[in-house]
Amino acid sequence: MEKFFNPKSVALVGVPRKTGVGAYNNLEILLKYGYKGQIFPINPRAEQICGLRCYSSVLEIPESADLAVIAVGRDRVPAVFDQCCQKGIKRVVIISQGFADGDEQGKQLQEDLAARAKSEGVRIIGPNTLGVYNVYQGFNTGFVDHYKPQRPDPVCMIAQTGVYQAGAKVFSENGFAKAIDIGNACDVDVVDVLEYLENDPETKVIAVHMEGIKRGKEFVRIARRVTMKKPIVILKTGRSAEGARAALSHTGSLVGDDEVFDAAFEKAGVIRVRSNSELQDAIKALVHFPPMNGRKIAVITATGALGIISTDACKDFGLELGPVPPYLPSKILKGLPEWVNLSNPIDIWPIGMISGKMPQVFETVLTDVLDSKDIDAVAVVWVSFKSPLHSDIDFREITASVQRIHKAGKPIAFWFYGDNVEKANKEYGSIAGVACFPTIERAIRGLSFIYRYHRKREEPKADSFDVKVDRLSRDKLVKKGNREKILVGEEAFALLNAYGIPTAPGKVVHKVSEALEAASSLGYPVVCKV
Amino acid sequence: MEKFFNPKSVALVGVPRKTGVGAYNNLEILLKYGYKGQIFPINPRAEQICGLRCYSSVLEIPESADLAVIAVGRDRVPAVFDQCCQKGIKRVVIISQGFADGDEQGKQLQEDLAARAKSEGVRIIGPNTLGVYNVYQGFNTGFVDHYKPQRPDPVCMIAQTGVYQAGAKVFSENGFAKAIDIGNACDVDVVDVLEYLENDPETKVIAVHMEGIKRGKEFVRIARRVTMKKPIVILKTGRSAEGARAALSHTGSLVGDDEVFDAAFEKAGVIRVRSNSELQDAIKALVHFPPMNGRKIAVITATGALGIISTDACKDFGLELGPVPPYLPSKILKGLPEWVNLSNPIDIWPIGMISGKMPQVFETVLTDVLDSKDIDAVAVVWVSFKSPLHSDIDFREITASVQRIHKAGKPIAFWFYGDNVEKANKEYGSIAGVACFPTIERAIRGLSFIYRYHRKREEPKADSFDVKVDRLSRDKLVKKGNREKILVGEEAFALLNAYGIPTAPGKVVHKVSEALEAASSLGYPVVCKV
Repeated sequence: MEKFFNPKSVALVGVPRKTGVGAYNNLEILLKYGYKGQIFPINPRAEQICGLRCYSSVLEIPESADLAVIAVGRDRVPAVFDQCCQKGIKRVVIISQGFADGDEQGKQLQEDLAARAKSEGVRIIGPNTLGVYNVYQGFNTGFVDHYKPQRPDPVCMIAQTGVYQAGAKVFSENGFAKAIDIGNACDVDVVDVLEYLENDPETKVIAVHMEGIKRGKEFVRIARRVTMKKPIVILKTGRSAEGARAALSHTGSLVGDDEVFDAAFEKAGVIRVRSNSELQDAIKALVHFPPMNGRKIAVITATGALGIISTDACKDFGLELGPVPPYLPSKILKGLPEWVNLSNPIDIWPIGMISGKMPQVFETVLTDVLDSKDIDAVAVVWVSFKSPLHSDIDFREITASVQRIHKAGKPIAFWFYGDNVEKANKEYGSIAGVACFPTIERAIRGLSFIYRYHRKREEPKADSFDVKVDRLSRDKLVKKGNREKILVGEEAFALLNAYGIPTAPGKVVHKVSEALEAASSLGYPVVCKV
Repeated sequence: MEKFFNPKSVALVGVPRKTGVGAYNNLEILLKYGYKGQIFPINPRAEQICGLRCYSSVLEIPESADLAVIAVGRDRVPAVFDQCCQKGIKRVVIISQGFADGDEQGKQLQEDLAARAKSEGVRIIGPNTLGVYNVYQGFNTGFVDHYKPQRPDPVCMIAQTGVYQAGAKVFSENGFAKAIDIGNACDVDVVDVLEYLENDPETKVIAVHMEGIKRGKEFVRIARRVTMKKPIVILKTGRSAEGARAALSHTGSLVGDDEVFDAAFEKAGVIRVRSNSELQDAIKALVHFPPMNGRKIAVITATGALGIISTDACKDFGLELGPVPPYLPSKILKGLPEWVNLSNPIDIWPIGMISGKMPQVFETVLTDVLDSKDIDAVAVVWVSFKSPLHSDIDFREITASVQRIHKAGKPIAFWFYGDNVEKANKEYGSIAGVACFPTIERAIRGLSFIYRYHRKREEPKADSFDVKVDRLSRDKLVKKGNREKILVGEEAFALLNAYGIPTAPGKVVHKVSEALEAASSLGYPVVCKV
């Protein structure tokens, strides 16, 4: 994989002669991205493109290359691939579309390529891909001139689409450092990339967009190992294969493909997300937050209403509100009307307003909750207005200094409201251990991701390295499931069992007398579904 | 209510002498907001504040006022309120905190005020509120100098917190035109405001943040009526009252308060949302989108991967993918390789790339799906990059012109990825009938809100104007539920029945023989829960 992410030389096959607006010229973009290695543009109808000499075929380039990027019509791909093999090029990115993503013939073409690659010892990324980018090397195989981050987040995105690399800024504020679109994944798959990233010091967080996977067992084994070193967050799409399931909705009584993925991800210790918003928030949390050792949080708020919403969100996302630090009330309630009291969520608005010491109150509360051994993380609801009447620079500096003193040992998630939110997000988001989210619910969900990651990592892992899948049973059942769109009762449980997932014992019966008999043999309590 | 939103004169009781940074001076802010009515500042220790003459008490002002805004310590509120009554002021906003939000004594103070208001024929907003703002009148009772929209969205936000008015820009891109914080709602409640907004021509969409409600029956009746004229979207918080429910999770077998709200909202025809992100998206959809007559959408995408995510999202949010318009393939696939085909989601990337006619393809597809009687709305996944190599001005103009030709009759939801998303959101968001969302899932959820609104509006409404609540049963059951934190079995169903919500017949039994007996008397099929 190293040669895919960091090639010393690259042959670009099928560079268009046109450059500029609308040309989607990958040579032009690679040069703009700042690649310093050797480039061999190949186009038989051009002498020169972007000032570089063109070659008429791969066979003509003066030496070999670490990598070839093929962007010609699908019918010409096999011939070009053969030339790469002849030339000793061992890494190939196939940008071209129209393979398994097109029709039956394309599928066959793709299978032939994959077989040929195997016998030649060549690795393929794609087809139907934008390929790879690596900001640190100014390397980019795609034909889209997207954002090149200056100080990228230490994230590698593995996707089956180019959207996440071209749109990286939407998903990670500072952009991803690296990304790979495995496309149709005829050869290089998510397992290969995970194995590579396990020991890549430039990658701290791995994000994955997955449509399907062939090597399920290897995936669980490798992901389990990688996740001990760095977090993996996965957006698995294609949940709609569940189809008929939704109509019945008796939890646990039916098993569709999606549940199998759930179980596999659980075993692998990866964090599954179900939407792009969740993906954004999980990446942000995993990039910015230190570990969270328990599930107890404190909420500091400028309004009671948001305290209630935070309480709802804690329940929704598996966190709890910890106790108010014992000495905090005596520190900040002195001299205030007796009706002012403290609980968690900690509403500091009346305290700060009546005392006229909002900054000091904020500092004391933040310090005390970070000091408390019963609080694992903090969520803050705060205001940011453009008006000079509400200059809030104090609070940003207080937060930074309190975090410095505490060595940023606990996560702090902010949600800002007001008319100056973007500026606040930027300013507070640069403090160590702090991240800002678009709503308070998402701030608390963000904390839940970091909690889940560290909890998963610390779970006992005995037996989890060797998942024994009963392939014969599974294949039979999955086939039947696909055919009939649904698996119920014993078959559903059998499928879970095939993956080594324990289920409660059960029996399908047809008469009341059979039910009674089954119940006594299984033992009470029982649940029956009619 | 008109005098709350549009008073000709206002007495501000308890204006601080201090102005500027950190003063939270509501007179200073009211002047800055541009109020043109008469203002009587009241502070016995000042001659003049912000250039206006101060009065030492309400009794001293030269005439009466449409409205008084009280911001003094809670213990002094009753005396000031009495002065307002003496002076003939019929509308009072009580900003002060420490009432039902404080302690028992505060609760009593609040009840006394409410009783006194009733006997004097005075209406109160609050206590514990920022009060009212009305951009069109430059009127604002709050002490927060928040954003004053130039061209506000025609939305009125009703909340039990000041967050939504101070933070309006977070929830509605152009800010709300009007907002009211009903605070502890000792008198004016959500029902009063809904009745007022029903015939307010400046309000097209009503958004509500609700913690609780006393007049449930009236709420359902009025909301049902208002929703025939304009949409109401509600974020009901405090779901965590469900507490123990989560642990058991057998759908339908337990009823907490939250299910009662669900049922009431369903009856009232309002759109319930469960998070601030949903609230944002619902407001955006209701402000920007024309009606959606059915649930069939078309997805136009620049990538197949997002097509899959869109399909998942359609299932999640109750929409369906409609058919590809019959003549579309012949219009855009001519001359292309045979492997290029069309389904919905419509991936136009290979078509546009291979033909070199991306703008024309986009225009044809958008036109045809808007023409189709089998498509009710469109979601578009599109790209926006800063790079001059991908100038996309064409697509913005195409979208605008196609919508113009179609008289913006169907909603179009966009999701942009790339590094220029904010600009694209602004430019496309200003096209009639178009709104841009932060992810494709949220774009499709946005469409689902407008579909749900128009479907709800058209449901048969017989009997729904008179909900008969069996108060005796309800109060008894709710009391028990609050005490024991949970209601199970027959009691849960009884509570639903008390609200007139039909439930399946059932019986609690203790022995198998009883179960068999019950089953035959109820009739099969039965479900039993052990």
